[in-house]
Parts: sequence; structure tokens; C-alpha cells
Amino acid sequence: MRSTREKPQPARSKGLDDKLYVALAERLATLIDAGTLAVGERIPSVRRLSEQFKVAPGTVLHAYRLLEDQGRIRARPQSGFYVCPTRQPLPEPRSSTPGPRAASPTVGDLVMRMSEMSAAEDVVPLGHAIPNAACLPTQQLNRLSAAISRRTSRGFNYYDVPPGCRELRVQVAKHYIAAGCGLSPDDIVTTSGCQEAIGLCLRAAVEPGGVVVVDSPTYYGILQAIEMLGMRAIEVPTSPRVGVDLEVLERTLSTRKVAACLFVTNCHNPLGFVMPEDRKRKLVHLLARHDVPLIEDDTYGDLAYGDQRPSVCKAFDAHGRVMLCSSFSKTLAPGARVGWCAPGRYLEKVKRLKFCNTIATATLPQLTIAEYLAAGGYAHQLRKMRRIYRDQVHQLSQAVQRNFPPGTRATRPAGGHVLWVELPSGTDSMELFDRAADAKISIAPGPLFSTKGDYRNFIRLNCSVPGDAQLERAIQTLGAFAEDLSRAPTAKVRSA
Amino acid sequence: MRSTREKPQPARSKGLDDKLYVALAERLATLIDAGTLAVGERIPSVRRLSEQFKVAPGTVLHAYRLLEDQGRIRARPQSGFYVCPTRQPLPEPRSSTPGPRAASPTVGDLVMRMSEMSAAEDVVPLGHAIPNAACLPTQQLNRLSAAISRRTSRGFNYYDVPPGCRELRVQVAKHYIAAGCGLSPDDIVTTSGCQEAIGLCLRAAVEPGGVVVVDSPTYYGILQAIEMLGMRAIEVPTSPRVGVDLEVLERTLSTRKVAACLFVTNCHNPLGFVMPEDRKRKLVHLLARHDVPLIEDDTYGDLAYGDQRPSVCKAFDAHGRVMLCSSFSKTLAPGARVGWCAPGRYLEKVKRLKFCNTIATATLPQLTIAEYLAAGGYAHQLRKMRRIYRDQVHQLSQAVQRNFPPGTRATRPAGGHVLWVELPSGTDSMELFDRAADAKISIAPGPLFSTKGDYRNFIRLNCSVPGDAQLERAIQTLGAFAEDLSRAPTAKVRSA
Repeated sequence: MRSTREKPQPARSKGLDDKLYVALAERLATLIDAGTLAVGERIPSVRRLSEQFKVAPGTVLHAYRLLEDQGRIRARPQSGFYVCPTRQPLPEPRSSTPGPRAASPTVGDLVMRMSEMSAAEDVVPLGHAIPNAACLPTQQLNRLSAAISRRTSRGFNYYDVPPGCRELRVQVAKHYIAAGCGLSPDDIVTTSGCQEAIGLCLRAAVEPGGVVVVDSPTYYGILQAIEMLGMRAIEVPTSPRVGVDLEVLERTLSTRKVAACLFVTNCHNPLGFVMPEDRKRKLVHLLARHDVPLIEDDTYGDLAYGDQRPSVCKAFDAHGRVMLCSSFSKTLAPGARVGWCAPGRYLEKVKRLKFCNTIATATLPQLTIAEYLAAGGYAHQLRKMRRIYRDQVHQLSQAVQRNFPPGTRATRPAGGHVLWVELPSGTDSMELFDRAADAKISIAPGPLFSTKGDYRNFIRLNCSVPGDAQLERAIQTLGAFAEDLSRAPTAKVRSA
Repeated sequence: MRSTREKPQPARSKGLDDKLYVALAERLATLIDAGTLAVGERIPSVRRLSEQFKVAPGTVLHAYRLLEDQGRIRARPQSGFYVCPTRQPLPEPRSSTPGPRAASPTVGDLVMRMSEMSAAEDVVPLGHAIPNAACLPTQQLNRLSAAISRRTSRGFNYYDVPPGCRELRVQVAKHYIAAGCGLSPDDIVTTSGCQEAIGLCLRAAVEPGGVVVVDSPTYYGILQAIEMLGMRAIEVPTSPRVGVDLEVLERTLSTRKVAACLFVTNCHNPLGFVMPEDRKRKLVHLLARHDVPLIEDDTYGDLAYGDQRPSVCKAFDAHGRVMLCSSFSKTLAPGARVGWCAPGRYLEKVKRLKFCNTIATATLPQLTIAEYLAAGGYAHQLRKMRRIYRDQVHQLSQAVQRNFPPGTRATRPAGGHVLWVELPSGTDSMELFDRAADAKISIAPGPLFSTKGDYRNFIRLNCSVPGDAQLERAIQTLGAFAEDLSRAPTAKVRSA
């Protein structure tokens, strides 16, 4: 849960699959953190380090550039690289305190506005949490898909009816061993992305009008699904470090008729936390006592920055009450629309609902992803993405710190590629959204993440875009707008 | 609407894309129908006809074999081919007479049972209406898909959010010119198959609990969608020749609160009719007067046997009340899961619902089908499929006539590949379904097509399987079971 700046990960073993310069940069970052290299000190020359670590001078230079990008060191002309002063990171937002009222979400209009905004050309895409296309193994998927097309007619001529492509289900079950989950391929139903999986699980467990407890803030796609299905949501207080407040949850379950909980447990969107394992276990036991099912959204679980794949609540589920949902849209191919769920005791119901909803998932994308996973390159792909996203989230956070008004807070994500930013009290993120849109910058305003229009002074920033001058300018522009809005009369009145 | 046996289509022009022997067989069939070649008469020898029509003897022989398969002529050893006696075709089922009560469909269990049955190995697949894989242009789609994969990364790395792939929408709009429809690509939303399209349109137009008027019998996927969405259905009497009874419909609209109508207008599933154009126009005007939207399922519209592509109600819709839905699952690729809808005034709502339901449709299958359509081979593909299906439906109908008990009736489909068979009164098709399952034959029992378990003495037979000895045996077995069940005590009591 710590920011990577406070305590970077130790350098990994320099396997063939890990880029050497990254490992070197991490090693140097550790030396800086430990004080071995003090602030203001000149770090060893490229030549010296190259000899010392027996790596090419180019590798050392790459490592230095990376540390420079991260704001850890600075080049002085004709002199070398020097350790930068360590700034305190931005304070984190506090736990949320949503009211106990059940509400029907109404975020649909706003999501469509943001979508249209994001689809426009020349927009700096800080709104939707779309993966960085350059990070995706698209070439490999294309090659595999073409090879499958040459080999079998199944990709097109076969209705892959529920539970869906067996090869894929086998690979998903294998992959989740690392998350502590003993899934069988027969426990899994493949879907058209995680969004369909969540919709099917909601329908399987909750009647229209029924109440779903969600973390707060939470991903707007979840709120839209609840809205579309005519259900209501209760938001519970959620810490940006450890997730949903279990005491408040227990009170809610004791006093209200709750049909299901729907939580993002790993690399939360938008808060970025990974729920600690003991809390996951407690949550599962609490829900078992109240006989309430949990829909667990693990979309970003593979993108946790730590060395270990975080566990899932499903791993502690002895009674089939946890309905685990995920997809490959964030790590492999958003365009494949391949997701899945392991809905426990709701398996048969979910299979039937899948048939009613879309009959089957497209076959060729399923086969392609199954072959990609079977080929064994996924672990490497994930290591690469995690590193890139961790660095980019860190850099964007620093850019926010440099450019946003005093009083700004930001999360310290443990995974994924979004940053949740709290603006000074009273700053209107809807107004910021409009101004940013005029300046060709897309952001996700806070009220998108609430059933009741809360988080009016929050924004979510997508960090999957690599840092460059344009991004830096966009953050400067947003910072200036935020500064201006934080001084608006409404802001003053509210913060008074 | 006539059976192909009563009056075969006239021989088509012998373009390069039409197989010569088929045209020749059709020409001969016309001569038989007209009495130019009388029953019992020997038809001209292969050599004579070959000279007369200036075609190869092999072509003539092919034509004769085809006519023999169709039961029009018979070979006598060492003598030649003779015209067979024309049997009267089976009488058609009468128009349905469902009651006016609104009901919540509950066909889900039965559909799943049939699905499991159909998925088993070595089953004669007369249950699900799946296309004949051998008829699909899978090789071409595979080649196109592989080429797209080599050319662009868009197939995998791109969220093709609503309204979906523009190239595909352009091709759909062009294709529907033949159906009298002036669609713009901007009128269209692509979906994960027609099933998703229908679900989205239902949600856009009908609140949970709302009433949808459907034809009777109707496709169980439609009933399942209504069931899943918590809506109710009213069935209206439907003629197996011209479709829904407009007078009863008008009375229903005048006396009940109806949220939408959902009709299959072309190559109805299971009845096989193409609604005549003037009735389509009347239907649209009637619904306009009552301000009720129509969800029009045109899944099989491209498979009408006639020379002209039948029109759609959407062609007469001046006010955006018709929501046209279709897919390429029956004509190109069931595994692609590519469908679409043109939802008229509900466009924005449907786009939003699509986003909530599955975010986007898989990109590569959409691009592949768009390229296939743009390449121009679809018209040829359709001509081939229509011919094959028309012949197979005809042959299956004859096999039913030969093997089923007296009192059996069957539709005379104008398109598609299913036959709706009425068994003697009191014959229990659920019992037949179970016995057939034991004998490794899958059929669709009548109650699947009703909200209230009606059509207990009906079955739907899928005719997409090419005729062979196994199919003939299956029909013999079904016929024997039906004969036996038609004599069961319950049957006697009921028909007494």
C-alpha cells in the first residue's frame, strides 16, 4: 500500500525477461532511499558504474534516464547526475463517509459524455481507464489469431455456448492458482468482458429493486450495471489503503436487507488499494454469517505492483458465495471482449443468463487468448505492464504535486493505472471536467464514482499514457483550472 | 408462402455464380409441374438433354440426381428416369389461437435441457436451429481475419465502443437497401449477436413488468429475453402463411397497456412465413396509431427462398418506432457473435445500454465480417444457402410425410431452415423429446415456443443438416415414437 516513492521494490533478479536497466535503476533507488547516496550527492559516473556492475555503459545511461524521469536524480551539464531532494508525497485522501441511504445510481449520462469526449481526436486521455496500447502484446495475439484461423474453422463457425471455450477456462483456472484459488475449469463461465460477467452475477443474485452494497467511491461501470438492472446501491465507507470498512459493513448487513455485495478487492478502481489478505478472509466470513453473496471484481488483480499476485476473496470461499469476475481487457486485449466469472453456487443460473444475454462469447478471441496464456508469456507481459504503470502513476502523481493547488491529496496505488485526486474542498470537478474538455483534456469527475453525486471535489486520472511534454502541459493546465476553481465563490463558501 | 413442391421457383439465369445443374433441375421441375412431363413418363435421356441444352452430360446427370433426391423422378435400372407421382404435401397447421392472458415466460429450463442434449456427441441435431457448418464461408472469413491480423492491431487493442465498428455499419446499411430500407450507418449499433440486440431493444422500450406482444408460436430466445428481463408477454394468433393476426392485434392494443411488440417478420422461427409486404405496412401504421414500438427480428431475412430479398417493417417506419434487429450468425458465422440493431428513436438509449451490458462488441470479428461484405461475395453465399436450405426443408418435410402418423401437419416455409410439425391431437411432444433424447435425436418440443406451455403436440425440426441415411433413420424413429404416442391413453382422451 506504500507509495513506490517511499519504498521502492527491491531490484529483481536479472532474468532474461527483466530489463537490466530497470533492475539497475531500482537498485540505485534503494541506495538513495537508504541514504547510501545522499540528497545533493553526485552519483557514480556512467563509466564507473558500468565497470562495477559489468553492464554496458548504455544500460547505465538508460537506468539514469529512468531515475531522472522519476524525479530521483537530476543531470547537471558537464558535471554528472545528482540525487534530488526527497519531497514528501502528497497526503492521501481520507476514508470516504457516504451516507447509509440506498440510492438508484444515475451516472449513465455522464459516462456517455465522457465517452464521447474520450473518442474525440487530439484529446489527452486522462478520463477512461484504457490500457496503453503500446504495452499490449497485440502483435503476438495477431500472430496467434492468424495461425488459429489457418488451422481450424471453429473460430467462426461454432456457437461456443455457456460455459464457453474450454481451453480458455483451463488457462484461467491455472492462472488463478497464484491467487490462492483452486478453481476447476467447470467452475468458470466465459463472458463478453468483465462488464457482462458483473451484469450476469448481479442478475443471478439480486432481484430488480434489490439492494447491492458497494465500496465508495467505486467504478462507474458497476454503478451503471446496477442502474440498468433497476437495483439500488448502498455505499459503505472505504479506506484508500485497505478497502471497505468491515464494521460499518457488518452494521449495514445487520440492519438492512442486502441482496449482494459488489467490491473491487485488488487494485481498486479508482482508489488503487489491494485489500489485505486478512481483511479479505474476514470479509468472506462476515458475508457467510449473513448469507450474503459477494460479487468480486478482480479486473486489475494482475496489475498489482508487488512481487506476489494478490489473493482474492474467492480463495477463502468455502460455500460458493463469492462470484469472482475478471477479464483480459486491461492486460491483453480490450478489443477481444473476453472476460469470465466463477459464480460459485450461482453457476447454473449464470450459464442460463449468459445464454439469454448474448448466447455465446465470440470464439476466435477466446481461442486466441487461451493460446496466448498456454504459451507462457503472460507472466513476463504482466511484469512489464506493472513496472510501466507503477512508474507512470508515480510520475503523474509527482506532476500533480508540482502543479495542483495546495490542499490537493492523491492516492498511492498498489496496482493498476489510475490516480484518485482530492482537490481542495469546494473545488467543483464537474466544472473542471467541462473546462478540461474545452482544453482537449479528458478526465473522470468524482461524481461518476458515486450513486448520489458525491466526490464533487475529486477526479480520477488515467495514468496509462506515457509521460511526455503534452502530458506535462495537460497537468499544468488542469492544475491551473483547479487552482482557479478552488478560489471560486462556491468553493470559498463551502470550505468556510 | 407456397411449398417449393407445389410450385418450384423458375430456373434462374445461369450466371457464373449459379450452379448450372441446379438451374437445369429447376427447369425440369417446372416442366413437371406444368404437366409437360407427365407422371409416369420417361424423361429425356442424359445424352439428348445434354445436346439440347448444350451442357456436359455430367451436368445433366447431376440435375437428374438432384431431382431424384427431391423425389420428383425415379431411376429404373437399364431404362432411364421417370416422373414420380406428385403426392399432396402435408396439410399446414392452422393459425394459432393463444389466449389473451399476459404471462411470464418460463422456458429457460427447457432451453438448457435442449442445449445440453444438443451439445452431446453423436446426436442427430434436429433441435437447435444451428446453421450447417459446411454451408458457411468459414475459409474466406479465416483468410480475411488472418489478413486483418497482419495489417492492423485494432482487432485486439481497441475498445470498439457503441455504436461499434463503422466499417460494419456502412456495410449493413448498404445491404439493407435491398430490403427497401434507407438506413444510415449512424442509425446502427453493433451488438454481440441478435440476442443482445433484442435484449437491448426490449430494455430500451419496456419497463420491467411491462407487456410485450409476441407472435405465437415464437422463437424461445425471445421468450427467454422477456423472462430474464422480468417482463410479461401476450401471444397473438399467428398464421403460418402471413403472420400475426392484425385484427386481434388491434383489439389487444385497444384494450391492453402494451409497451412493445416483438415480431419475427421474415422466415419466421418456427413458422417459416414471410409476412407479405402490405401486411408489414399495415402493421407499422397500426402501431403508429397506437404509439407502440415494434422490435423486428430479421435474423433469417436473408434466407428467404424467393428471388427478391423480402422487405422489413423498418422500411415503412416514418417515425422511428421500429427497432430492426439482425445478425450474421445464420448466414456467415455463428461464432463471430456479430449482430446489430437500428433502434430508431431509441438509438441513444440503446447505445448506452450496450455500453452497460458488454461495453463493446469484439473488434476482430466485426472487421472480418465488414471486409467480407465489402468484398461482394455475400449475395452468392446467400443464393447458395437458400437453395440448400430450401431443398433440405423440402426433403425433411417429405420424410416426415412418409414416416409420421396420419393427422400430422407441417408448415411450408418461405425461408430459413426449420420445419414446424403438428402431431395428431394429444400427442405429447415433451414425451417425444425425452424418447428422442434417449435415441440420440435432438428435437425442439412445442412448449418451448409459448409463454404458457402451449403447442404440446408440436415439434420444430432443424433442417440445416444434409439428408443422409442417418437422418432418414432418425425421422423414421421419430415417426414411430410419434405414432406410438398418438395412440397413448392421454392422446385418446384428449382427442376424443
